[in-house]
Amino acid sequence: MQVKPFITLVGAGPGDPDLITLKAVKAIQVADVILYDALVNEELLDYAKPSCTKIYVGKRAERISTSQDYINKLLVDYALTHGHVVRLKGGDPFVFGRGGEELDYARQFDIPTAVVPGISSSVGLTGLQQIPLTYRGISESFWVITGATSDGQLSADLQTAAQTSATVVVLMGYAKLAQIVALYKQQGKGNLPIALIQNGSLPTERIALGRINTILDEAKRKEVGVPAIIVLGEVVTKHHAFERLKEELKTIAQ
Amino acid sequence: MQVKPFITLVGAGPGDPDLITLKAVKAIQVADVILYDALVNEELLDYAKPSCTKIYVGKRAERISTSQDYINKLLVDYALTHGHVVRLKGGDPFVFGRGGEELDYARQFDIPTAVVPGISSSVGLTGLQQIPLTYRGISESFWVITGATSDGQLSADLQTAAQTSATVVVLMGYAKLAQIVALYKQQGKGNLPIALIQNGSLPTERIALGRINTILDEAKRKEVGVPAIIVLGEVVTKHHAFERLKEELKTIAQ
Repeated sequence: MQVKPFITLVGAGPGDPDLITLKAVKAIQVADVILYDALVNEELLDYAKPSCTKIYVGKRAERISTSQDYINKLLVDYALTHGHVVRLKGGDPFVFGRGGEELDYARQFDIPTAVVPGISSSVGLTGLQQIPLTYRGISESFWVITGATSDGQLSADLQTAAQTSATVVVLMGYAKLAQIVALYKQQGKGNLPIALIQNGSLPTERIALGRINTILDEAKRKEVGVPAIIVLGEVVTKHHAFERLKEELKTIAQ
Repeated sequence: MQVKPFITLVGAGPGDPDLITLKAVKAIQVADVILYDALVNEELLDYAKPSCTKIYVGKRAERISTSQDYINKLLVDYALTHGHVVRLKGGDPFVFGRGGEELDYARQFDIPTAVVPGISSSVGLTGLQQIPLTYRGISESFWVITGATSDGQLSADLQTAAQTSATVVVLMGYAKLAQIVALYKQQGKGNLPIALIQNGSLPTERIALGRINTILDEAKRKEVGVPAIIVLGEVVTKHHAFERLKEELKTIAQ
């Protein structure tokens, strides 16, 4: 049988296996090979056909640059030898997923490609927590920024973002929370509401709510750790427990 | 039978009925009433149980403010009299969907609520077109901005966005494309790549690619119209046909 190489980048969503699209499930069902990431829910692999080869390519422990080259090569090798490769990525493949680099590499070998978008944790985890990313009269935009730039520094975009009224979501930035808090304080935004969501959409979900001035203590109190997303903006006050937080603070002040 | 009022905001995704999540389908399947928008694919209503009441609440022709009050009222009335109401919205309920206002209203009546996120057209339609929102070394963030602010002006955020290297996606802004082009020109960004995607993910999809200086002509040539999203940033050069565009321009220049 002639092999028809094809690569589909598929977004697996933020964690809950029901937060994947029907289109993504259909792609998994026809895949000859699946390369999947650390943040992908492994229950999703059950949709694959029995003959499908499933390969874990999580990048946690290895050097990232080597590892991405290795994944690119695996993708192409498997497409040429096995046919349809599904690259299953947490969230959406193009939201800091390096999906663009994988497509570029595949195109060098003239392998046809497709992309199935996924629920980005930036949109999905805020939504599940009923924090609206936009709200008439509060926020006309949302800005999603990586906390893990290639040079290891905070993104310069975050400096600009802190000066706007956009809702800001930082992904892969939890390890730099103290730096981000310092940056917002420098902008005189100590009162800005902020939310931290760890393991969003999963049974192990944890959330901390507060203001720039209080969030480091609150994170400790709620024992929030990686992987967590950071949400900054007035819209965080719309979270149902933020109201309760206000009541608590009032009680303490009395 | 006692009615248990409940309201779930559900994102229907950008158009293709397969771009809805499994969780959203499950919500539709158990709904007693569905209130759905103009941009929702009506095929999705087929998942509803036979007894489900389906009500179109598209806002195209009416005055928006009146109409939103009316929708809020319908949501609560149906929840109190019928039980589980699914509010089915195009894209994601919190990305300019006014889902936050609907939740606020429901809470005044102590009706429990839930949110099922959807694929926002900002992430999904760029993804399907294989335009990566972020790309190492090109863009460390993406910024999603409404073109339709409550006062009818361009959002001030867009002015700031034009000065950054963030990928910018403007939703509901196609009618103001000429204004947006003028704003980017003022910032000296006449060469910035830009994409327009109309009816994304549907068989009627149309796309125009170009640079700020050329996009108005290109939009006319490709007959792009509303509803369309606008994508601004260097990542647009990653679209496979942008390469072809470069070749065409080279040929014309010779």
